Amino acid sequence: MIYQQNLVGLFAEKIGENGFKPTQLDLYRQKFLNAQERFNQIFADGSLPLFKLPYLRKDLLTLTPHVERFQDDFTDVVIIGTGGSSLGGQTLRVLSEAREPRLHFLDNVDPATFEALFKTINSQQTGFVVISKSGGTAETLAGFLSCLNFWRQSASDNAISDHFLVITEKKPSPLMRLAKKWSMPVIEHDPDLGGRFSVLSVVGMLPAMLVGIDPLAVRKGAQDVLEHALKERTLEENLPAMGAVAAVILGKRYPNSVLMPYVDRLAYFAKWYRQLWAESLGKQGKGTTPLDALGTVDQHSQLQLYLDGPLDKVITLIGSEKNTDNQAPNMEGLPDDELLSLLNRTSLSDLLRAEFEATRDTLIQNRKPVRVITYETLNAETLGALLMHFMIETLYAAELLNVNPFDQPAVEQGKVLAREYLAKSIE
Amino acid sequence: MIYQQNLVGLFAEKIGENGFKPTQLDLYRQKFLNAQERFNQIFADGSLPLFKLPYLRKDLLTLTPHVERFQDDFTDVVIIGTGGSSLGGQTLRVLSEAREPRLHFLDNVDPATFEALFKTINSQQTGFVVISKSGGTAETLAGFLSCLNFWRQSASDNAISDHFLVITEKKPSPLMRLAKKWSMPVIEHDPDLGGRFSVLSVVGMLPAMLVGIDPLAVRKGAQDVLEHALKERTLEENLPAMGAVAAVILGKRYPNSVLMPYVDRLAYFAKWYRQLWAESLGKQGKGTTPLDALGTVDQHSQLQLYLDGPLDKVITLIGSEKNTDNQAPNMEGLPDDELLSLLNRTSLSDLLRAEFEATRDTLIQNRKPVRVITYETLNAETLGALLMHFMIETLYAAELLNVNPFDQPAVEQGKVLAREYLAKSIE
Repeated sequence: MIYQQNLVGLFAEKIGENGFKPTQLDLYRQKFLNAQERFNQIFADGSLPLFKLPYLRKDLLTLTPHVERFQDDFTDVVIIGTGGSSLGGQTLRVLSEAREPRLHFLDNVDPATFEALFKTINSQQTGFVVISKSGGTAETLAGFLSCLNFWRQSASDNAISDHFLVITEKKPSPLMRLAKKWSMPVIEHDPDLGGRFSVLSVVGMLPAMLVGIDPLAVRKGAQDVLEHALKERTLEENLPAMGAVAAVILGKRYPNSVLMPYVDRLAYFAKWYRQLWAESLGKQGKGTTPLDALGTVDQHSQLQLYLDGPLDKVITLIGSEKNTDNQAPNMEGLPDDELLSLLNRTSLSDLLRAEFEATRDTLIQNRKPVRVITYETLNAETLGALLMHFMIETLYAAELLNVNPFDQPAVEQGKVLAREYLAKSIE
Repeated sequence: MIYQQNLVGLFAEKIGENGFKPTQLDLYRQKFLNAQERFNQIFADGSLPLFKLPYLRKDLLTLTPHVERFQDDFTDVVIIGTGGSSLGGQTLRVLSEAREPRLHFLDNVDPATFEALFKTINSQQTGFVVISKSGGTAETLAGFLSCLNFWRQSASDNAISDHFLVITEKKPSPLMRLAKKWSMPVIEHDPDLGGRFSVLSVVGMLPAMLVGIDPLAVRKGAQDVLEHALKERTLEENLPAMGAVAAVILGKRYPNSVLMPYVDRLAYFAKWYRQLWAESLGKQGKGTTPLDALGTVDQHSQLQLYLDGPLDKVITLIGSEKNTDNQAPNMEGLPDDELLSLLNRTSLSDLLRAEFEATRDTLIQNRKPVRVITYETLNAETLGALLMHFMIETLYAAELLNVNPFDQPAVEQGKVLAREYLAKSIE
């Protein structure tokens, strides 16, 4: 596999009674095999879109001409969408070093954010992508209308169809009506693919491709993990299943689950995970609360709490097992000082790794449950693999907890209320 | 007060047995008065720097010439620091609409982040500010060395003192040695003021002033809250004390505390709070785990978990009670659709407020403990007030929990280990 998972820090042998014993796994072996069998079935019959995504090619061919056009014509691309329609793209785009087009994600409806953005973009050089599975998300529609309004103040309606692109289900909806009205191209959003599982679909691939990330590499990494998760029948060797079983065993004692990568480019990945885990499992009083953190920053913010606060967290650290070729400063003429001399001979990536390993060992020495995930290099394939790992881990956990990972029934009430309040406010 | 606090959603009368009864406050009345008396004592004898900050002027006079010089000479300013040396500045800077100088906060040691930044800045037009209270934080020193190295590749050592500025304690330290070596100006960091309580000091004020935020307005808001917290002897009327008592009562049942502002500009405020609460209270097994969230974004990410997951959270919503003058699109020629027609007549700020109120009411109807903080307009004074509210709330909570809010003893072990690993890695 392109990444490793080390669970030693979760077991009683390493962290005493705060961990669990290997024999506790036995309760879950049959459940794991049942879940795996079910996954193999839906893989074979093609009933779960997530499992088909790594192999899809046609959708990328549909995207390509739009991507090329946007790259050629625009300095800026505004992506309007919220939740899963935004987090996947934001997670992937960080791998890019391309300077243009600049991507702007509008995932909220704060007027100050819109005004600030409109001051910096030129409508003639800007493309807009609107993403909403249902086509009826109020925030996304409102953001879209604001962008349309901005556009129409300085340009002709005739050109709209060249600047706007819509990703949504092929069914009648407010978004679809808007797209048709101005003949905007519409890319189909699989109606059976929920937002938080959509990062490998056109929803995540379009932003990624716009900034030059290879979608095939992302899907290749995801495919390897999917096939491993479906085939590897030894629980201990099956990385996502073992992650899920450990999470379920420990979740009974520890209500919080921290994901703390040690690289800036995975900060959004942790936020993406936070939605995935929270929305998929947080129902019927079940699930645990995901927390996103970032090393080394949160050593200076959260580590005190992790080490000496309430014992209620399982912590996953993610980092590189290898140094990049980043150079130490090696400057001449520094003042005489032991720490400066050490740091002058140290690359930032060496320091990052030393901090990562020190945090891991400090947590373990303090008997906190710690899982460690490592990879060699962070690239499109690694990220695709990590994305698929956590999606499948979430699916295994849902099977073990007996919840439906694909719905989010509790939030409907709020949506109805919001619309009522809105209607009242403009009466 | 410039903000309001509504705790109705925390009481049993509103949310049933998930809330607490007013009689439970009685246990804490004397403790509150004792804490308040102690705070008045240290206010009078000047032994707590935090309480003196709202009234300080001399430090701002020291900053002014540096600020003016940086504003005149530089298009970019890089601020190197981590934890409290960074979060306060990042929290304040969002109020600015100034385009230049652009602030870049380096709060981590990821080499990719440094490389990306160095590609976009011109060393001749860039100022650097290095902030570390102790002057010995490895990450900050390493970041500083990287920036120095970048600088020295294209410019003469003679000019360093015009481009670099250091904020640190006046004592011998690696950072002080570096500053002296190249005659960089050094601004004093109060040795008794911990990073997470430093936002109102030069640490937060320098970045704020660089982007044109009035430091006196920030301090004015903070001063009002401080004086209220010291004088108001009725627990129910004392906003920060009442927040603390409610947090301590509910913290026994709910291990997590969510802070969810409904405005993009407070997203960093929630991160700042996360450090403040976690590091100040998370010791001896005490404290609760702070979670930062953002409305409306996290309605599409976390609300399912809040509503139907484990009952282990107290949620604080922050939002405006008033609409800004943001205009509805009111476009002509939209397709015929009920929701579009509603949204077309709605300003984004109306929508934001409807979502805020709907989330509040949905949480309460589902009997989740909810506190609501509202303000009229978000400006420097409001933000100063909110910052001071949460610092004093944290101090009151620390008194009630009997922990020292100013130390972070558990993280020292990790720092020693990191340095050991580092020394080994370059042997």
